Amino acid sequence: MVIRYPNGQNYKPASVKKSRKNNNVIFGNRGMSLEEELNQSNTYYLHREIAVVHKKPIPIQLVQVDYPKRSAAVIKEAYFKQASTTDYNGVYHGYYIDFEAKETRSKTSFPLNNFHEHQVEHMKACVRQGGICFTIIKFCATQELFLLPVATLLKYWDNQGHGRKSIPKKVIATTGFPIIYHVQPLVPYLACVDKLIENLHTTKGVSHE
Amino acid sequence: MVIRYPNGQNYKPASVKKSRKNNNVIFGNRGMSLEEELNQSNTYYLHREIAVVHKKPIPIQLVQVDYPKRSAAVIKEAYFKQASTTDYNGVYHGYYIDFEAKETRSKTSFPLNNFHEHQVEHMKACVRQGGICFTIIKFCATQELFLLPVATLLKYWDNQGHGRKSIPKKVIATTGFPIIYHVQPLVPYLACVDKLIENLHTTKGVSHE
Repeated sequence: MVIRYPNGQNYKPASVKKSRKNNNVIFGNRGMSLEEELNQSNTYYLHREIAVVHKKPIPIQLVQVDYPKRSAAVIKEAYFKQASTTDYNGVYHGYYIDFEAKETRSKTSFPLNNFHEHQVEHMKACVRQGGICFTIIKFCATQELFLLPVATLLKYWDNQGHGRKSIPKKVIATTGFPIIYHVQPLVPYLACVDKLIENLHTTKGVSHE
Repeated sequence: MVIRYPNGQNYKPASVKKSRKNNNVIFGNRGMSLEEELNQSNTYYLHREIAVVHKKPIPIQLVQVDYPKRSAAVIKEAYFKQASTTDYNGVYHGYYIDFEAKETRSKTSFPLNNFHEHQVEHMKACVRQGGICFTIIKFCATQELFLLPVATLLKYWDNQGHGRKSIPKKVIATTGFPIIYHVQPLVPYLACVDKLIENLHTTKGVSHE
């Protein structure tokens, strides 16, 4: 059976995504999707009482649900709905954090068609409310991870009509923060969030517990 | 076909929930569930750029998904999973807010079995991170709404072994804040959240933008 993502793209098991060109580099996390890596990291942060961040469930439109006697309800017909928000949100040191996690096979840039309009609108709305928004981008070919602040995304997003439809990797590396795979947690992205919070204070003079 | 909630309870259409004893009282929102009322209010808050609060989708365990040619993916077998968090969260004036919405037919108290252990644990974790947590309780018989701060819930929850398994309505009315149905938004709960934020500042001396 061919398995596909809700958007119709073919599902490729994570192992297939490994770059075969970098066999000389060893990474402990090989074979895990970015989502699995982040879920594991969020569980670590939760148990250590460092932050409370969860991935939101996939939105589903229920059509038919059966209730067999003495057993659990079974969904017999349902459809995937497009999410109206980003995938991850939560609270860290009193701050609301909100982000998307995206993988790309591109080696030189991050294509903007990885985002939906409503996800970007959601991020803009969160920023207006003082939330901390960003994207975690994984370049699968090199297994490189970056935390990209929302400002860079919005700059390229809003300029799509006039220019390129992707963010160059160079720009991501300079305006974003590299996340180096670690053991506990596997993806220590909150260290980068600390920097975003520092910048927030420097630029706005916000005092916050 | 008998329709049931994921927890096995029978589904009663909202109209059935109306109190027949209060026919002399007119409420514009009659027939709407608390969830619908809150979704409508959150949409208002979102469009007016007052807050970004969303209800999380119901978590589902997918088992079988079909991909008919030229049409959308169809979920053919799936099961409801128990949520590991509360239903609503978002950002308001830089604060992380997180809450559950519960309806009860009881006239004198709010039964604690409306909550699952993990929901309460989630609220405790959010509070430790500086989030603002509460429950919106609707007494269906009288169509009364209260915002109950998390402190009261935790006090009764943690004391269940030694005492009563519900929170008296009197306690909810004195430690919580009544929410009066309005037009725009229908459930103006953020006015009560403002009071929670004020209290936070008074007791902790927190400075926050």
